[in-house]
Amino acid sequence: MSEAALTLEGWYALHDFRSLNWTAWTAADDEERAVALDELNAFIAEWAGVEEANLGSSAWYSIVGQKADFVMMHLRESLEDLNKLEAAFNKTAFAPFTTKAYSYVSIVELSNYNSGGESGEDPMQNPHIAARLKPVLPKARHICFYPMNKKRELADNWYMLDMAKRKELMYSHGLIGRGYAGNVKQIITGSVGFDDWEWGVTLFAEDALQFKKLVYEMRFDEVSARYGEFGSFYIGNLLTSESFEEMLKV
Amino acid sequence: MSEAALTLEGWYALHDFRSLNWTAWTAADDEERAVALDELNAFIAEWAGVEEANLGSSAWYSIVGQKADFVMMHLRESLEDLNKLEAAFNKTAFAPFTTKAYSYVSIVELSNYNSGGESGEDPMQNPHIAARLKPVLPKARHICFYPMNKKRELADNWYMLDMAKRKELMYSHGLIGRGYAGNVKQIITGSVGFDDWEWGVTLFAEDALQFKKLVYEMRFDEVSARYGEFGSFYIGNLLTSESFEEMLKV
Amino acid sequence: MSEAALTLEGWYALHDFRSLNWTAWTAADDEERAVALDELNAFIAEWAGVEEANLGSSAWYSIVGQKADFVMMHLRESLEDLNKLEAAFNKTAFAPFTTKAYSYVSIVELSNYNSGGESGEDPMQNPHIAARLKPVLPKARHICFYPMNKKRELADNWYMLDMAKRKELMYSHGLIGRGYAGNVKQIITGSVGFDDWEWGVTLFAEDALQFKKLVYEMRFDEVSARYGEFGSFYIGNLLTSESFEEMLKV
Amino acid sequence: MSEAALTLEGWYALHDFRSLNWTAWTAADDEERAVALDELNAFIAEWAGVEEANLGSSAWYSIVGQKADFVMMHLRESLEDLNKLEAAFNKTAFAPFTTKAYSYVSIVELSNYNSGGESGEDPMQNPHIAARLKPVLPKARHICFYPMNKKRELADNWYMLDMAKRKELMYSHGLIGRGYAGNVKQIITGSVGFDDWEWGVTLFAEDALQFKKLVYEMRFDEVSARYGEFGSFYIGNLLTSESFEEMLKV
Amino acid sequence: MSEAALTLEGWYALHDFRSLNWTAWTAADDEERAVALDELNAFIAEWAGVEEANLGSSAWYSIVGQKADFVMMHLRESLEDLNKLEAAFNKTAFAPFTTKAYSYVSIVELSNYNSGGESGEDPMQNPHIAARLKPVLPKARHICFYPMNKKRELADNWYMLDMAKRKELMYSHGLIGRGYAGNVKQIITGSVGFDDWEWGVTLFAEDALQFKKLVYEMRFDEVSARYGEFGSFYIGNLLTSESFEEMLKV
Repeated sequence: MSEAALTLEGWYALHDFRSLNWTAWTAADDEERAVALDELNAFIAEWAGVEEANLGSSAWYSIVGQKADFVMMHLRESLEDLNKLEAAFNKTAFAPFTTKAYSYVSIVELSNYNSGGESGEDPMQNPHIAARLKPVLPKARHICFYPMNKKRELADNWYMLDMAKRKELMYSHGLIGRGYAGNVKQIITGSVGFDDWEWGVTLFAEDALQFKKLVYEMRFDEVSARYGEFGSFYIGNLLTSESFEEMLKV
Repeated sequence: MSEAALTLEGWYALHDFRSLNWTAWTAADDEERAVALDELNAFIAEWAGVEEANLGSSAWYSIVGQKADFVMMHLRESLEDLNKLEAAFNKTAFAPFTTKAYSYVSIVELSNYNSGGESGEDPMQNPHIAARLKPVLPKARHICFYPMNKKRELADNWYMLDMAKRKELMYSHGLIGRGYAGNVKQIITGSVGFDDWEWGVTLFAEDALQFKKLVYEMRFDEVSARYGEFGSFYIGNLLTSESFEEMLKV
Repeated sequence: MSEAALTLEGWYALHDFRSLNWTAWTAADDEERAVALDELNAFIAEWAGVEEANLGSSAWYSIVGQKADFVMMHLRESLEDLNKLEAAFNKTAFAPFTTKAYSYVSIVELSNYNSGGESGEDPMQNPHIAARLKPVLPKARHICFYPMNKKRELADNWYMLDMAKRKELMYSHGLIGRGYAGNVKQIITGSVGFDDWEWGVTLFAEDALQFKKLVYEMRFDEVSARYGEFGSFYIGNLLTSESFEEMLKV
Repeated sequence: MSEAALTLEGWYALHDFRSLNWTAWTAADDEERAVALDELNAFIAEWAGVEEANLGSSAWYSIVGQKADFVMMHLRESLEDLNKLEAAFNKTAFAPFTTKAYSYVSIVELSNYNSGGESGEDPMQNPHIAARLKPVLPKARHICFYPMNKKRELADNWYMLDMAKRKELMYSHGLIGRGYAGNVKQIITGSVGFDDWEWGVTLFAEDALQFKKLVYEMRFDEVSARYGEFGSFYIGNLLTSESFEEMLKV
Repeated sequence: MSEAALTLEGWYALHDFRSLNWTAWTAADDEERAVALDELNAFIAEWAGVEEANLGSSAWYSIVGQKADFVMMHLRESLEDLNKLEAAFNKTAFAPFTTKAYSYVSIVELSNYNSGGESGEDPMQNPHIAARLKPVLPKARHICFYPMNKKRELADNWYMLDMAKRKELMYSHGLIGRGYAGNVKQIITGSVGFDDWEWGVTLFAEDALQFKKLVYEMRFDEVSARYGEFGSFYIGNLLTSESFEEMLKV
């Protein structure tokens, strides 16, 4: 394991993107729609209890554009918990008004490129680290999600660099992120072995423009410029039961 | 941020491409079609009020070929405004006769590669710049839209070039565009962090052939030739309520 | 424009590939099928009038394999004309028995790599050139269509070659095509700014094997070997109202 | 044509992959299923007559996995014959229980890399060559199909090699194939100008493991290792009317 | 065959990923759902008999995320056996509540890069090897599946390396895997000639995090870093009739 960076992992994560079947929704009658929203609200209400018990955290955002209509992001203790959440949603009377859009399976991750390495202590005993591995998801105005890889293309091969070089590159990369502290909250989830890209990046901000400025500035940094591969970007707005009902009011 | 070009941003943009379900449309009865068009026209009529209040701008064009039947391009103050426009369309009686085709989320952007840099002034106080960041969309005869990236492929890596080189390349690139002034109106929207490509390019012209001549000439310019990656191209014709009803008259 | 080859453009082109919904077709009753074919034949009959008036040309071929069941290729004066043709087809009683398969938007193009350049004359006054820019589509036994790009990949970048080199390469490329004169009729349409590839190539021949021999021989030519990128190939057989009814007879 | 290898062509080929709509099949009643199978069997029975008259050959195999449920491979004299076969299948009462999965259009081909070149003789007069260009398809226990290209990627560009080098490479490539003579029967079909890849490879064997051993061994040969690009692989088992009815018995 | 590694093959493998149609499932009545589950359980019960008779082995896991809801992994003696399993599932009353998600066809494989080569003995007579070629699939808490290729891209071309170099690289690669012995059980299946990638990797573990740690550590090994190409990753949780009924209980 000498060349692989050590990582710490916390809660498992599921990003569950759904589209609305607007035609079915507008064709339903008031009673059907009311039942559907009641069951959806009951499903969402359970999230609060899990969060209070510190057993996980969830976030709920609309998505702008046709890729999806909303995303439910769940952090939980196990893959079985995530599976149960999926099934629970699918059994609500609201689910038949939705279709699958995209999903991502990963786990909250801290890389220790910049740490002092193995000290023998259990990092979960460090409250600062524990809070980052099992975070309460922000209820910021906007969300941004995208998956990414480190490139392995001939001369531009991240995984053929030695640890010292990667550490140096990640250090300057991290400086850019820190320049946005206070404006953008970033949660990195690792998905090697779990899903089709190596990492998921979830950003939260009050001002969506900060996402653009952060990602654009990073793109000129060598870690992204030479070694970053990016998947689809999803951006959206915070949802509440009230704003969601407003959005769906026919 | 030394190596990233500074950019100025204006209104958020949504390009909303839709296809018609012609089978459902021709199978509907006259009454259903009339109601659907009435609701669509009411939806569109609201755009004029927004544009008059200088709170946004919208454009409406048919698309040639099977990729889509029409596009609604919206510029608005916030992502929430764009989400509301999507929902409002989806609630019209016309929406069930359409299907999603493609969408693009971005923000009107001016790059300052060619500006004098930061002068300390608020650029939005400059009426020329403000008008470009919050533009009234042209009602030209034709539209052309395509998304694009700057390439990061081994020796052809835009983001590894230094600012001076990029500035020089963008200067000669801009000269080509200026040669089409009066013939082609171009609106650049940035989408780093917002959607799957880095920029969206929307062109307007009375003569569609000018799109081809402009894009083809630019392709020989080093910025495009070595560093440009292009997505799908959409081209279409200006729609009015009258021409759209004519197109849909069964 | 010094480095871009000058091009001459004629009629706009739409290749409209459609699949048959055979299950719906065989489930319809004789009366429905008769009405559908009558309306299709009326739609097609209008093409002849347009061709006689020299306002455009159309061709109609079946497609072999599952990609599509037939293609309607239309050349017309404007993008609006093409949009109207799409709508007119979609309103026929035959259209609901079809689904969209693929389409391509382009414009008939002559490149002047091999011409003497700008002489000041209006090339449309040259009857030979005018006939190539606004051609009557052949009614040959077979059609072949494919879209293509010139590559921009590191050392193999067509758009970074100077004009003299491209002219030399295109000259030898053209010689191969001329070796098939009389056997294969070729119509090049440009689609930079109009659709996802840079050109569309439509070939017509009595002997479909000639398509294979021509495209294969060209593939060893440097223009194709190093710089050609090819999309999907579609091949088919000439349709008439009689042969189409025969094909559809249940 | 000096640099292109001469090829000889025989019958046109259509690989027609179909999936079963199992839900519709199991929901149908016994009478509907019996009629569907009768019409399918009648359609298949016609193949035998064509084969006896030496006007073509057909094969019928199940496919393992979800890509398709079965493939009908047809060799015929013309593209019109193939189109007629498609239509005839689509008109059977069995077709509505199927959906399109994949298809491939090509023509049986012999490359003369290893021949003595042009001798002036008509190769179709050579019974050995004629039998390879218009073959009776084997009724082996297993089939394997995949399409392929010769690569054109920077330094690995097959089409920029000279004829002598290609001839040398193809010679050693052919030796591997000959090592499987008796175990694997190989039919090469060319599809340049006809479909999306340059060749289709169809293999027949009693022992499916021989496909794996042959393709794997070839992959280390320079022709495949440096110059081969491969599409999807389909593998399956011989069908008869009896085994197919058994498979479909509800 | 000098340059190709010798491989030993055992049982054929089918990974059969399915999605649930939750809308149909929740819309069904209790009776329909009970019959569907009964038939599914009967289908699964047959697997136990096959496993006891040492004629194959099967595993059944849920999948987390939208790619699929569950996977049935089957090892059997022949491709015909696999085809019969597919048909048998499709005839159950449960199958119409599912849709196809993904499948993979391969064969259990042992590469002898690290063996002493051909000794003349029949390796199937070696009980250790036989048990690895015809394994009983673990009933671990978690599964991970992904397909992969060895890269053939210019300078990074696995198939152009000589046997000694590949053997050396595979040796250090294997050391990483052995570091996870006891935590992760790995079954390699070869699919050259059978499906779209060259190998399938199926991992089993009690702790899903071990999948991430193993795959991530291997990615820094030259075999993966320079030569590995990876498809989609699927991860899930062990299913039993009880847990599956619980998941589906409406």
